[in-house]
Amino acid sequence: MTNQDYVQLNRTGDKMPLVGFGCWKVSKDDVENTIYAAVKAGYRLFDGACDYGNEAEVGRGLKKAIQDGLVKRQELFVVSKLWNTFHSKDHVRSAAEKQLKDWNLEYFDLYLVHFPVPLKYVDPKDKYPPSWYQPNNEDSLEFERSPMHETWREMEKLVDDGLARNIGISNFNVQSVLDLLSYCRIKPATLQVEIHPYLPQKRLVEWVQSQGIQVTAYSSFGPGSYSGMSEAGKTTQPLLSHDKIKAIADKYKVSTGQVLLRWAIERGIAVIPKSEHEERLKSNRDVFSWSLDKEDQKEIDSLSCGLRFNNPDDMGLGLPLFA
Amino acid sequence: MTNQDYVQLNRTGDKMPLVGFGCWKVSKDDVENTIYAAVKAGYRLFDGACDYGNEAEVGRGLKKAIQDGLVKRQELFVVSKLWNTFHSKDHVRSAAEKQLKDWNLEYFDLYLVHFPVPLKYVDPKDKYPPSWYQPNNEDSLEFERSPMHETWREMEKLVDDGLARNIGISNFNVQSVLDLLSYCRIKPATLQVEIHPYLPQKRLVEWVQSQGIQVTAYSSFGPGSYSGMSEAGKTTQPLLSHDKIKAIADKYKVSTGQVLLRWAIERGIAVIPKSEHEERLKSNRDVFSWSLDKEDQKEIDSLSCGLRFNNPDDMGLGLPLFA
Repeated sequence: MTNQDYVQLNRTGDKMPLVGFGCWKVSKDDVENTIYAAVKAGYRLFDGACDYGNEAEVGRGLKKAIQDGLVKRQELFVVSKLWNTFHSKDHVRSAAEKQLKDWNLEYFDLYLVHFPVPLKYVDPKDKYPPSWYQPNNEDSLEFERSPMHETWREMEKLVDDGLARNIGISNFNVQSVLDLLSYCRIKPATLQVEIHPYLPQKRLVEWVQSQGIQVTAYSSFGPGSYSGMSEAGKTTQPLLSHDKIKAIADKYKVSTGQVLLRWAIERGIAVIPKSEHEERLKSNRDVFSWSLDKEDQKEIDSLSCGLRFNNPDDMGLGLPLFA
Repeated sequence: MTNQDYVQLNRTGDKMPLVGFGCWKVSKDDVENTIYAAVKAGYRLFDGACDYGNEAEVGRGLKKAIQDGLVKRQELFVVSKLWNTFHSKDHVRSAAEKQLKDWNLEYFDLYLVHFPVPLKYVDPKDKYPPSWYQPNNEDSLEFERSPMHETWREMEKLVDDGLARNIGISNFNVQSVLDLLSYCRIKPATLQVEIHPYLPQKRLVEWVQSQGIQVTAYSSFGPGSYSGMSEAGKTTQPLLSHDKIKAIADKYKVSTGQVLLRWAIERGIAVIPKSEHEERLKSNRDVFSWSLDKEDQKEIDSLSCGLRFNNPDDMGLGLPLFA
């Protein structure tokens, strides 16, 4: 692990920053300013999604930063994701086009399949973002017969037609990746999954990396964002204030957030923390000038307990996606 | 859960016995006699596979039982499995035909995809059963670009052409099943996976059952068969002699094996124990005339610890198939 702050993606060789800004759950009122501040703090990668419900606002923040000369479009690395209700071969293209319009962009640097879960189509005019449920049925999921090999073919066409420079996947497990690799024309550039000390996903990460796919961690800080969504999110000791992480942070004179991010980066994993505090925005990017001793890595590894927070099955959706 | 000893499969309504005989690792020398004895003891379902390397011997045992008038072909329920090296659309049919010839049968009652892992083709003339490795490379797996949707289309043709009455899958997780359900013309009749008190697979089982797919447990007795194959198989307390299981067996005046099988059956799961001892052959089928109290079910459930024995990743194959 060298201390360069980007990786190069397979096929295109595009440089993807190892530390990006995650747009999930950015406070609604102030998205534009938060994004603008993030650009100012040096962030170049912005990780969004249809499902986050704030693509237009994030886009406006970026536009302002470009207009003010803080950054050029080609210096940014914009990531978005295809939502579950748009997996059909008839809907991938129009979903991506709508999202590009929301961002006010010509192309995404990276466009991901958000979940390997094909849900019944919802017309954006009826509900947007669509979320997991049909507008008229909040009791159970309704699936659509859109096989991943058809969805992926449409993702590949987005590359062919210049709407996405790179394409990738999120929340796929090894079986799903293995099948995808058997039919893809364009190999996924990245896999984005939940990774933190409670859920290090050691073998998934190693195997996916061995296939030439870059891994990105979401929820690097663990339960924080899930306190309102699941029992585990509510009751688990937050990592940002965990004694073991604190002790290590004190040793290196960094924040607990930096320790958690550095722990991932030392495994070759990209991260996308979110912060709305200027101080933390900056410190979260400062993870390349120092490194964790082996004993500290091990200490963090010892927190592993298979605890997953972003599990549709624990949110009342009745889908054990990771079983 | 009624106490009938069979279930009816989706689509065909075929009656599948809930207790079958598993042919994996039946002692090479005496397969024919063991199978014959199993028929005599009342077994009607025989669960075989290319990979078990004994299909011809099992077939001879069944043939003798039929010739001696113990049973008729149509009373038997014969299960076999497509090996990983035959996933290509050019090889599924010939693999099934070779296996039917080995069994000396016209059709399988149920034919499963053994693993969602497409390995490079091995000509049966060069090595049979092929196992995980190429004949000239015992160091690493070599994959083949045979997508599951192509393999499954060939499986469906086996049904169309009468080579298999039902088709199913084995070792698939929820993501793999979800994708399969999005493109299959013929829905899988069963999913066969590792299930025992150390690995109850609660949510996988419930969700798969909710999709109308019958679940079959393999390795109901836990680590027993894996003592030579993995560290966990070697070092884990065997379930057949586990104190908690023993205490429950004593209470009901049954064997520990019966307790483990009954525990699965009460969840609607079919089982395929193996035994070469006449006494146990018989007792393993005697799991319908009694039932476990709730407190005993819970006591068994408390052994759950996510311990998987049949994991390619723990056998040096470098493939974390269940990550």
